[in-house]
Amino acid sequence: MATTEADKLITSDDPNHPANLIPSLCAKFWHLGWVTGTGGGCSIRNDDKVYIAPSGVQKELMKSTDIYVLSLAAQNSTFTDRTYLRSPPCYKPSQCTPLFLAAFTKRGAGCCIHTHSQWAVLVTLLLETQGSGNEKVFEINNIEQIKGFGRGMTKSGNLGYHDTLRIPVIENTPHEEDLTEYLEAAMEEYPDTYAVLVRRHGVYVWGDNVHKAKTQCESLDYLFQLAVEMKKLGIPWTSEIARIGPDRP
Amino acid sequence: MATTEADKLITSDDPNHPANLIPSLCAKFWHLGWVTGTGGGCSIRNDDKVYIAPSGVQKELMKSTDIYVLSLAAQNSTFTDRTYLRSPPCYKPSQCTPLFLAAFTKRGAGCCIHTHSQWAVLVTLLLETQGSGNEKVFEINNIEQIKGFGRGMTKSGNLGYHDTLRIPVIENTPHEEDLTEYLEAAMEEYPDTYAVLVRRHGVYVWGDNVHKAKTQCESLDYLFQLAVEMKKLGIPWTSEIARIGPDRP
Amino acid sequence: MATTEADKLITSDDPNHPANLIPSLCAKFWHLGWVTGTGGGCSIRNDDKVYIAPSGVQKELMKSTDIYVLSLAAQNSTFTDRTYLRSPPCYKPSQCTPLFLAAFTKRGAGCCIHTHSQWAVLVTLLLETQGSGNEKVFEINNIEQIKGFGRGMTKSGNLGYHDTLRIPVIENTPHEEDLTEYLEAAMEEYPDTYAVLVRRHGVYVWGDNVHKAKTQCESLDYLFQLAVEMKKLGIPWTSEIARIGPDRP
Amino acid sequence: MATTEADKLITSDDPNHPANLIPSLCAKFWHLGWVTGTGGGCSIRNDDKVYIAPSGVQKELMKSTDIYVLSLAAQNSTFTDRTYLRSPPCYKPSQCTPLFLAAFTKRGAGCCIHTHSQWAVLVTLLLETQGSGNEKVFEINNIEQIKGFGRGMTKSGNLGYHDTLRIPVIENTPHEEDLTEYLEAAMEEYPDTYAVLVRRHGVYVWGDNVHKAKTQCESLDYLFQLAVEMKKLGIPWTSEIARIGPDRP
Repeated sequence: MATTEADKLITSDDPNHPANLIPSLCAKFWHLGWVTGTGGGCSIRNDDKVYIAPSGVQKELMKSTDIYVLSLAAQNSTFTDRTYLRSPPCYKPSQCTPLFLAAFTKRGAGCCIHTHSQWAVLVTLLLETQGSGNEKVFEINNIEQIKGFGRGMTKSGNLGYHDTLRIPVIENTPHEEDLTEYLEAAMEEYPDTYAVLVRRHGVYVWGDNVHKAKTQCESLDYLFQLAVEMKKLGIPWTSEIARIGPDRP
Repeated sequence: MATTEADKLITSDDPNHPANLIPSLCAKFWHLGWVTGTGGGCSIRNDDKVYIAPSGVQKELMKSTDIYVLSLAAQNSTFTDRTYLRSPPCYKPSQCTPLFLAAFTKRGAGCCIHTHSQWAVLVTLLLETQGSGNEKVFEINNIEQIKGFGRGMTKSGNLGYHDTLRIPVIENTPHEEDLTEYLEAAMEEYPDTYAVLVRRHGVYVWGDNVHKAKTQCESLDYLFQLAVEMKKLGIPWTSEIARIGPDRP
Repeated sequence: MATTEADKLITSDDPNHPANLIPSLCAKFWHLGWVTGTGGGCSIRNDDKVYIAPSGVQKELMKSTDIYVLSLAAQNSTFTDRTYLRSPPCYKPSQCTPLFLAAFTKRGAGCCIHTHSQWAVLVTLLLETQGSGNEKVFEINNIEQIKGFGRGMTKSGNLGYHDTLRIPVIENTPHEEDLTEYLEAAMEEYPDTYAVLVRRHGVYVWGDNVHKAKTQCESLDYLFQLAVEMKKLGIPWTSEIARIGPDRP
Repeated sequence: MATTEADKLITSDDPNHPANLIPSLCAKFWHLGWVTGTGGGCSIRNDDKVYIAPSGVQKELMKSTDIYVLSLAAQNSTFTDRTYLRSPPCYKPSQCTPLFLAAFTKRGAGCCIHTHSQWAVLVTLLLETQGSGNEKVFEINNIEQIKGFGRGMTKSGNLGYHDTLRIPVIENTPHEEDLTEYLEAAMEEYPDTYAVLVRRHGVYVWGDNVHKAKTQCESLDYLFQLAVEMKKLGIPWTSEIARIGPDRP
């Protein structure tokens, strides 16, 4: 495939085209402290094409020409064999690639966001100090912002105020692509989750489309920050609250 | 009413037209961390028309064409019967709608802002740990920023430095519209308040016009953040301070 | 004086004209959390003319046409008699006016900034808990940022790393203009200070020109925030540090 | 050399020319709280020319015409003898100059950033309270963001997740240029470090080029902030973590 043909994949005047949207989202995430030049990223799937930011790029300066395009049809090949439909001239593929692909192939996600948010990292560190098996899942309930999450892939609607949001935590590995099997195992164990925390590292959050992935990531980061502040103030993350008003479907 | 007629309600070159102002305010509030894609919002009343942001919109990307317009004259009808003068093509009405309407009909407000500010939520959590009835109102005094609040609908001027600002707290309900009766009860009990906190959820703040609602919301968020920091440093929210200088009207 | 003549005082294409600079500075300060719609402000002196923001304006939206212009020659008249060379059509004068004038007349300042920064307020609250006379001055030393301050009006150069920065604290009064006599007394007692803290309220910072007032205000806010964080971590604000290297003039 | 010839050194339409890049980077760093009008800065080396911000400039307002240009060939001359190829008309050279030059001459760096980040200062203060020789190096491990750092000038690739990042701390001196000998000594003692902390002052971070210096500075500031939050929550900065997955080169 000639370069000019490949470059058509990332050339569009539409600000919502994945090759334009990934740079604008990453700039926004950089300002939120979610990603830096070497950490975090974002990938969007459009049918069988996957658009993905390169490794080590300055996130607030990314351009559409920096974007890789992968064919999802080729996702069963091993990592080293993976074929790119379009590659930027001077970058390396992101180590997050197989993890983004897991969200697309195992969950049918349309967008996956990976942040190194300090609030996510601190939550995993706080859980680690608890030990005794309590360190493997973050739980919070009775906070309105929980309603920003879907109930799960096989369920309709969003979580309710009294529901407990559960985000599994996997241990970090020296190489990011080695996280894939653990991420997939957590997806199996928590079939309804839209996010997986990685200890001392960050979080992967996905959604059916860019809108849902982003708003779920916003809600989750809000809850992680709130949870850290609650811990500083001695307030527990889960509680039994007397119910007021009807609990309608 | 034809779509083109309805769309005239949200079409204006004036940046201060409610349909333009709500998006610019919501983008500002998103940057302040007050609202997210699924939480918080803003509504403006212009005579008997109410302009209101839809549910679940990305707050920093909202457009005038996303705005609902309601007739206040129809507000006595039940929620399911409510008629919209103008609806955006691909959104659902906000669950905050009846709460915004309460501010407009019970208080004659011109603008109502609903934030999920973490400082508001943390203040309600800190009050909750006190129990014994102290959890139902936030009180702070002897802080200059208190002067950013009006004394009340039936009184002239703003609170003074030595006055105690009191913001009632209502318990959260699984469905946001079910908060309405509790919000209205708090308005009855605190006839001079311009804000009501919702436990583990956020705050509703209103004012006679956009300017007053926004500046009161700024002052209140400032005080909530200060109160959380004061708690971390062991400083009480209320105190007896020796008066200096004349206490003129 | 006809309105058109008066309006010439605030009409200029130069972004550094006081009537343009005050709005751009206030917008910047709003983003830093130093000022809100009802708190804080900024005034610039140009020879015998004083430019000043009005009361209660949304600080990030201010326009040159919102600015008051005062003649410094008239400053000896009482507050009620003060004559404005130019007044905006729909605002009230700021209650900060006599305090800004004190910086201009008693210190020959070219610019005075008043913030409600939470860090400033928290520092005054922390000092208050110490009592025993220690609450009347903020002291910090051995922090590099201290070098951002001038030694004083009658001295040349800036403070050194080992010098102790001292900012007096005055008690708040119900009416901001009543602070004037206490501010002036603090200026007398601390003839070299470029700032005065107001308990539970904020800080006034000035400088020979806009550049110096702003950079001193930046340094001071940095030190207030650092001081609060130091307190949370149990680190004292002043200490004896062994000197390294030559202590040249 | 005529002024017009000298000014050619800082005149370019290329946003990546050092004279344009330093102002845009400094504005960005100002928004991050890394630099203020009197603290912090940035220098870029292009072959044997060094571009450097002046002393005391408002960092978010810097222009290319504010930039000094030095010849690296002249770096062996003493400080007072240093010759500038181009000087701005109304500024003084930065006291950071000899420290930036140390990064260029001792390490072959292409860019050096100096921040007064409060997180850097707080880390040095926390280390100071430990004493017993533990105060002379900041150590952290088992945090993903550590992978944002190169292993060292004589080594290829970046640090791994289980590696311990070590940043030496030097004591502050009354005059910034007097730090040079201590900075150079720390470079000798830690031949692989890309950064040196200065107690109660800030940090110097460099890299082979602007991209690497900036992303390393981002990662380091992230780790400093995380370290302060970990301390507040009672979580140690270093730990033994069971290894998961292969530890490949």
